[in-house]
Amino acid sequence: MVKSVTAFAPATVANVSCGFDILGFAIDELGDKVTVSLTDTPGLKMVRIEGDGGRLPYEVDKNTCSVAIQAMLDKLFFDKGMEISLYKGLPLGSGMGSSAASAAAALVAANALLGNPFEKKDLIPFAIESERIACGAAHADNVAPSLLGGFVLIRDYTPLDVVKLPVPKGLFCTLLHPHLELNTADSRSVLRKQISLKDATIQSGNIAGLIAGLFQGDLALISRSLKDVIAEPSRALLIPGFYELREAIKAAGALGSGISGSGPTVFILSPGKEIAQKVGQISKQVFEKIGLGVDVYISEVNDKGAYVVE
Amino acid sequence: MVKSVTAFAPATVANVSCGFDILGFAIDELGDKVTVSLTDTPGLKMVRIEGDGGRLPYEVDKNTCSVAIQAMLDKLFFDKGMEISLYKGLPLGSGMGSSAASAAAALVAANALLGNPFEKKDLIPFAIESERIACGAAHADNVAPSLLGGFVLIRDYTPLDVVKLPVPKGLFCTLLHPHLELNTADSRSVLRKQISLKDATIQSGNIAGLIAGLFQGDLALISRSLKDVIAEPSRALLIPGFYELREAIKAAGALGSGISGSGPTVFILSPGKEIAQKVGQISKQVFEKIGLGVDVYISEVNDKGAYVVE
Repeated sequence: MVKSVTAFAPATVANVSCGFDILGFAIDELGDKVTVSLTDTPGLKMVRIEGDGGRLPYEVDKNTCSVAIQAMLDKLFFDKGMEISLYKGLPLGSGMGSSAASAAAALVAANALLGNPFEKKDLIPFAIESERIACGAAHADNVAPSLLGGFVLIRDYTPLDVVKLPVPKGLFCTLLHPHLELNTADSRSVLRKQISLKDATIQSGNIAGLIAGLFQGDLALISRSLKDVIAEPSRALLIPGFYELREAIKAAGALGSGISGSGPTVFILSPGKEIAQKVGQISKQVFEKIGLGVDVYISEVNDKGAYVVE
Repeated sequence: MVKSVTAFAPATVANVSCGFDILGFAIDELGDKVTVSLTDTPGLKMVRIEGDGGRLPYEVDKNTCSVAIQAMLDKLFFDKGMEISLYKGLPLGSGMGSSAASAAAALVAANALLGNPFEKKDLIPFAIESERIACGAAHADNVAPSLLGGFVLIRDYTPLDVVKLPVPKGLFCTLLHPHLELNTADSRSVLRKQISLKDATIQSGNIAGLIAGLFQGDLALISRSLKDVIAEPSRALLIPGFYELREAIKAAGALGSGISGSGPTVFILSPGKEIAQKVGQISKQVFEKIGLGVDVYISEVNDKGAYVVE
């Protein structure tokens, strides 16, 4: 029997513009690794956390890795123990699905260690449990794409209804992480509680267009549909240079941009690597001009999701 | 040169549940016919209207047929005239896209008469002009599916962005036209002007699921997605038996139901003709119990749209 498994889970972009609270997609390479080992001592134990600057908890009822695995084990008969090591590749609180990637990697590793009693899709509810701990809300728009890869629609939660969507060939994402702190609670509190009927209808048209564009591989339709009239008008105010950046990247051939999760990270979708790199450069200049440093990541949209490394 | 062309355009269901104001689909058989003939006397003339019970206007600036054709002719050099005959197959004010079918048939006939200078899709703006006359609002969710057939998404109006969606095989529609009058203005006025953020998000998830279901041919997903939390809760109150009907048809295997346009017609989507017929019978019983007569039409979803008959 395998005694130790390491899995990788990718960063994700949730709230994809008009897909506010229902859509997410996964990024290549950037992500977290988790190693899970079997022990004879019952119970879970966080034995190592690296790359978090000492900010993440070792308590098993507080760390997203152990919370997710415990939710899974509660569905099985399991009388041994597991030791968990987390290697953060993702910055915390950046809006790139950091806690979700940890949970997804932990679940895929633990599931493999037990001989894969669950399909990947069936791991989503366990990862949602860990999001409740990490973010205070049991949302799935990061954990589902981190596990499954590609674009994932969360149609409903009661019961959970998750739909994997196709990824058009050559779709690249540029992620911009400006060096500013944004409190998720603040980012939530700026949202309007009431939406006009007109805005709700516009949002419906755009999310419908985005889904159709993904299925048809119609990048122009995707570009026209990447408009969020619900969350973005409030949240963009928290990110200096947001609209100036949009003008610049669209002029350079990008399909569109939006806030990743609740920010401050901004995502840009582009038709191909070359434009994705070019808009990365342009973005640096835009943020530099307003005196803001920025990390830039460029990646194809990842259709694979979390996977076992060794 | 052909001197006379007759075209048929089908009935349509707009506001397809969660597709409020952005989605419509076309029905087979049930619809309007329009004959357009060339004359040497310049100008348009409505020469005959049948099947309307004398309710439709002969004035060329008020009839949807002539208004639509005039909008088309304004884009061309045309120094002759046309005589227009309208044969209504659709009841007026029923919520089945009656005015839209007249305009669509008129445009397809006139376009053919001129040697098809326009593609069908390019006729939509002219038909929208006629809807402005007929309904007081320049909406496209009836005219677009009546012209193009199938499910059609109206993503935006400025500029017009119309996306034809695939129709899953074997998808049938049962249309129920209860014998009650519903004023479109009333039906509009009951709508809430403000929507909660939560409801807007639920609606987004459902329209996204419906579009994905249409592309994947996933009837179960279509069924789960046919939920309207925005318009239906208000409008259903104007249609006695609406929710009782839904329970009954879902128990009989239908995918779901909703209000066609602004009502009072109700549409039911079913996987196959047999269930579509069965739920037609059940619907009659439900409406009879509350003392309401009902006309029942059963049809495959029409993927062809308006076409030249002779």
